[in-house]
Amino acid sequence: MKKGVMRPGHVQIRVLDLNEAVKHYVELMGLIEMDRDQEGRVYLKAWTEVDKYSVILRESYEPGMDFMGFKCTSEEVVEELRKELLARGCEVEDIPEGDLKDCGRRVQFRAPTGHLFELFATKEQTGKWGVGDHNPEAWPRGLSGMRASRFDHCLLYGPNLPETLDLFSSVLGFDLAEQVVAPDGTRVAQFLTVGMKAHDVAFIHNDEPDKFHHASFFLETWHDVLRAADLLSMTDTAIDIGPTRHGLTHGQTIYFFDPSGNRNEVFAGGDYHYPDHPPVTWDADELGKAIFYHDRQLNERFLTVLT
Amino acid sequence: MKKGVMRPGHVQIRVLDLNEAVKHYVELMGLIEMDRDQEGRVYLKAWTEVDKYSVILRESYEPGMDFMGFKCTSEEVVEELRKELLARGCEVEDIPEGDLKDCGRRVQFRAPTGHLFELFATKEQTGKWGVGDHNPEAWPRGLSGMRASRFDHCLLYGPNLPETLDLFSSVLGFDLAEQVVAPDGTRVAQFLTVGMKAHDVAFIHNDEPDKFHHASFFLETWHDVLRAADLLSMTDTAIDIGPTRHGLTHGQTIYFFDPSGNRNEVFAGGDYHYPDHPPVTWDADELGKAIFYHDRQLNERFLTVLT
Amino acid sequence: MKKGVMRPGHVQIRVLDLNEAVKHYVELMGLIEMDRDQEGRVYLKAWTEVDKYSVILRESYEPGMDFMGFKCTSEEVVEELRKELLARGCEVEDIPEGDLKDCGRRVQFRAPTGHLFELFATKEQTGKWGVGDHNPEAWPRGLSGMRASRFDHCLLYGPNLPETLDLFSSVLGFDLAEQVVAPDGTRVAQFLTVGMKAHDVAFIHNDEPDKFHHASFFLETWHDVLRAADLLSMTDTAIDIGPTRHGLTHGQTIYFFDPSGNRNEVFAGGDYHYPDHPPVTWDADELGKAIFYHDRQLNERFLTVLT
Amino acid sequence: MKKGVMRPGHVQIRVLDLNEAVKHYVELMGLIEMDRDQEGRVYLKAWTEVDKYSVILRESYEPGMDFMGFKCTSEEVVEELRKELLARGCEVEDIPEGDLKDCGRRVQFRAPTGHLFELFATKEQTGKWGVGDHNPEAWPRGLSGMRASRFDHCLLYGPNLPETLDLFSSVLGFDLAEQVVAPDGTRVAQFLTVGMKAHDVAFIHNDEPDKFHHASFFLETWHDVLRAADLLSMTDTAIDIGPTRHGLTHGQTIYFFDPSGNRNEVFAGGDYHYPDHPPVTWDADELGKAIFYHDRQLNERFLTVLT
Repeated sequence: MKKGVMRPGHVQIRVLDLNEAVKHYVELMGLIEMDRDQEGRVYLKAWTEVDKYSVILRESYEPGMDFMGFKCTSEEVVEELRKELLARGCEVEDIPEGDLKDCGRRVQFRAPTGHLFELFATKEQTGKWGVGDHNPEAWPRGLSGMRASRFDHCLLYGPNLPETLDLFSSVLGFDLAEQVVAPDGTRVAQFLTVGMKAHDVAFIHNDEPDKFHHASFFLETWHDVLRAADLLSMTDTAIDIGPTRHGLTHGQTIYFFDPSGNRNEVFAGGDYHYPDHPPVTWDADELGKAIFYHDRQLNERFLTVLT
Repeated sequence: MKKGVMRPGHVQIRVLDLNEAVKHYVELMGLIEMDRDQEGRVYLKAWTEVDKYSVILRESYEPGMDFMGFKCTSEEVVEELRKELLARGCEVEDIPEGDLKDCGRRVQFRAPTGHLFELFATKEQTGKWGVGDHNPEAWPRGLSGMRASRFDHCLLYGPNLPETLDLFSSVLGFDLAEQVVAPDGTRVAQFLTVGMKAHDVAFIHNDEPDKFHHASFFLETWHDVLRAADLLSMTDTAIDIGPTRHGLTHGQTIYFFDPSGNRNEVFAGGDYHYPDHPPVTWDADELGKAIFYHDRQLNERFLTVLT
Repeated sequence: MKKGVMRPGHVQIRVLDLNEAVKHYVELMGLIEMDRDQEGRVYLKAWTEVDKYSVILRESYEPGMDFMGFKCTSEEVVEELRKELLARGCEVEDIPEGDLKDCGRRVQFRAPTGHLFELFATKEQTGKWGVGDHNPEAWPRGLSGMRASRFDHCLLYGPNLPETLDLFSSVLGFDLAEQVVAPDGTRVAQFLTVGMKAHDVAFIHNDEPDKFHHASFFLETWHDVLRAADLLSMTDTAIDIGPTRHGLTHGQTIYFFDPSGNRNEVFAGGDYHYPDHPPVTWDADELGKAIFYHDRQLNERFLTVLT
Repeated sequence: MKKGVMRPGHVQIRVLDLNEAVKHYVELMGLIEMDRDQEGRVYLKAWTEVDKYSVILRESYEPGMDFMGFKCTSEEVVEELRKELLARGCEVEDIPEGDLKDCGRRVQFRAPTGHLFELFATKEQTGKWGVGDHNPEAWPRGLSGMRASRFDHCLLYGPNLPETLDLFSSVLGFDLAEQVVAPDGTRVAQFLTVGMKAHDVAFIHNDEPDKFHHASFFLETWHDVLRAADLLSMTDTAIDIGPTRHGLTHGQTIYFFDPSGNRNEVFAGGDYHYPDHPPVTWDADELGKAIFYHDRQLNERFLTVLT
């Protein structure tokens, strides 16, 4: 957090049918619907989050990610980072307060991978759902489904990984926590963190820009990963892979699809990071094991990504 | 246990290379080497078992199962069941005491599926490994690898399922705990238990007789299934499928192969059975989900079985 | 199950306030209310049980256990055991069909410890709650609180342990699975099982007869024990001890009290038993560790029992 | 980490008998002995730590904590914080490079609670034990005992909590994550974090300065807390309390004592913190539940602290 960027604050996901999507993210994954806006967007939060929401669902003709936003410690930080982005030649777009409900101004920019990101510092805080911050119980009764506890990160596919790493590290203060490197030294995957988590955003090289692999949510335990898998079967939801473990980050994971075809991950565990930790490096010829530690090979579905 | 048959007492497995096999079953799976005999066979036990051993490894030119033995409450039971087998027209072979080390007489017979089974009542009891039966600690320190806690069951492929069920239920006192039934009413899989476990032996229909699908060992928790999966990756051991859950029995499982190509399972959890429980029935068109609850489809490897 | 007694089939518990008790056993412990009768008794089941109910709550002026019933494999078994009880000089009382709702005739007798037990063979089977026996899902959605999965056993205090063991073993077919023995050879605690569970009923010596220590219910995992403990705190329910592990049986446990002062246990894990297993013996001077494996001493509350 | 302080880097603990202490911290807790120095001090690390060591054991006449050190991102940060400490009127002592083996210069200061802390930026990095940073396996085989995964925090008792909070927050960049407040508004306990963990150091008010309550180590799961409790019983090690959960931080925990009487904690789970999170507040009349969420009362032993 050395430049004042704290964490992934929200992700806006496009869905084909809003009602089906709300059912998926609320009843199955356990997010909580907090609000809707005049454009019809639905605002969801995970229960341990202090901010009012972390997921915005927007009905559209095709699935995918509109943008991912990082929360900063102050408006001054947002202003300063805006200047640094401009100084690098990045175009930025200023989104006024209130465009997202109960959220302050946002500064949008496009990364060299083609993805749209944004920085913001102000959002209404409603506190941890069901427990608050005064003599809080261990967890709230009444959570649904997988009981996802927080929005954790996104995995994105696109070109220009070196330029993207440089932007995220030198301007935004991210560290390269983990990477996959080809025999010729090319970095084909980079996992970036701005705090102590194994990753806050990750990129895998892809010739086409702006592809969305998945949005990921945190569960508390490997038992919760099993419960999630069980719930996916009970609701006849398409599983991509899992329950399994990743080699990269060592998290315990399952991948599946929302009704629009967006991939979701829920996971538990995983490594932690400090700024003095050297990046962990996987050889590209170990990519199968790096991604799926037990199967040690990629399935075809993993390779498909959304526009 | 209404006819005096208690449990799977042992399984004799053929392996291509004895040293590699011992390394697999001892260092990786956590069984304990207890003895060897003049024929070179190696005797292994799992730590919670009271008898001296439950797995016998025999070096051979092809992998597979030689026989599976059930322990009975007394020699009188063995004698009585021997008579009932003969009365049904089953050929039996009497194996004298001492053929298996520290084991009493055994009565062998071939089931209609083509598999060789045996009954016995006497085997040296060495007690639970590392804890004993006097002020026993919760578990022994010094276990290796997966720390498999007991030999649990075998899954076998062959023809003549109805005749086999009839033999096991009317003569040996097994219950049909769970089954898979085709639309025409044919039972294509049957899971039999002689105690409270979800199954002590299971059969899946196959035109060719005497095929060995896997020998299965019990772990304590879903966490232990994850550890097992991790150890399989660390030792570069071929995984068949998992970690996942079965629909049938609902156990949490992983399948993998020993160095000779014999399939092993380790699993945790699963349903329990009492004699008044009606059989649980799965429709054959749900076979994928019945076998692998999360993937809901059979992989090709699952369908391969050994001679 | 050598004499045809299968398992603890039900326990009738006296409660001071029926509404509070129902709230405790249903909302907090996760049992399911199945029926009520004209006497005002409430019938509850745990979700994995095939029979219609296993707990009967009766409003009374003092808490405690009215009786504990064992289910047998057939009415013939009940009749035969009735004769054997009479032949031993046990008085039996025949309770006609329908006295407990949807339950057949019951044969009651008083054990030398002073407790009332009964045998029965017929009870309506409603199947596992929420999943049934046709393509059953892994677990039902919609369970409450601790999601107790089955009524497991009772621990009772009274005199005449040797006579009680003799009755339970020679007439009813129970095994002595585990015991605590004083330096002079007196058995001060005996854990009896009629199947593969670590115990179906347990007795601790007490000069006064007919004391009720607790009724116990099974959970699936150590995580569920933690959740149970959390729920006890959230609902301000009095905890006796736990989460911890028992030395005896090695189960993972927590003890607490219902609103009437009856002690409940929920636990996970624990050893298994076969008829050829020698009893596990704890020395009485290790009683603290035998009961509470981690604290290694008895708390005062543990020693209090209900009339 | 806004001022460049990253994490608890080490703690030096006084022990009465070095051999016994090494046995406790290595064989039982699972730390790894990395080195010894000419003064006879022993250097230990937990396996996930990248630095060479995090615990230093020093033989002495009385147990307790000598000092706790925080690692900073650079020597420049150490220098800058040294100036700020002096500017506040704090006395600092400069400890030259090499006083602790393979560690750079350290700046020591005494907090208003009477405890000795130090800042440093340079220590040899040996990488995660047994796995490294190149295609790392999920965990190393060969860990002992509890397999503690990192030194996490210390809980200290002393006076002047407000002044100590002010020093840690304004100079060192810590946040107040959680607190216990008396009815008159006095803060009686403060949990401070400099990263995303629930706490990196915690203070409870005590009239006497410089008291040591415990040093705490992280485990991966609630199952590991159970294993730790089991190992404590198996080794006849004195347990203070647990397994249980804290209300404060919601971690799953067990407290015990090393052979010299120093209290240790191992725990799993627990909340996370970001700089925009308001402090969580517990009322002092809920202190029992805040400390021990299940028992909801403090035991006497908890209140004893070392000089």
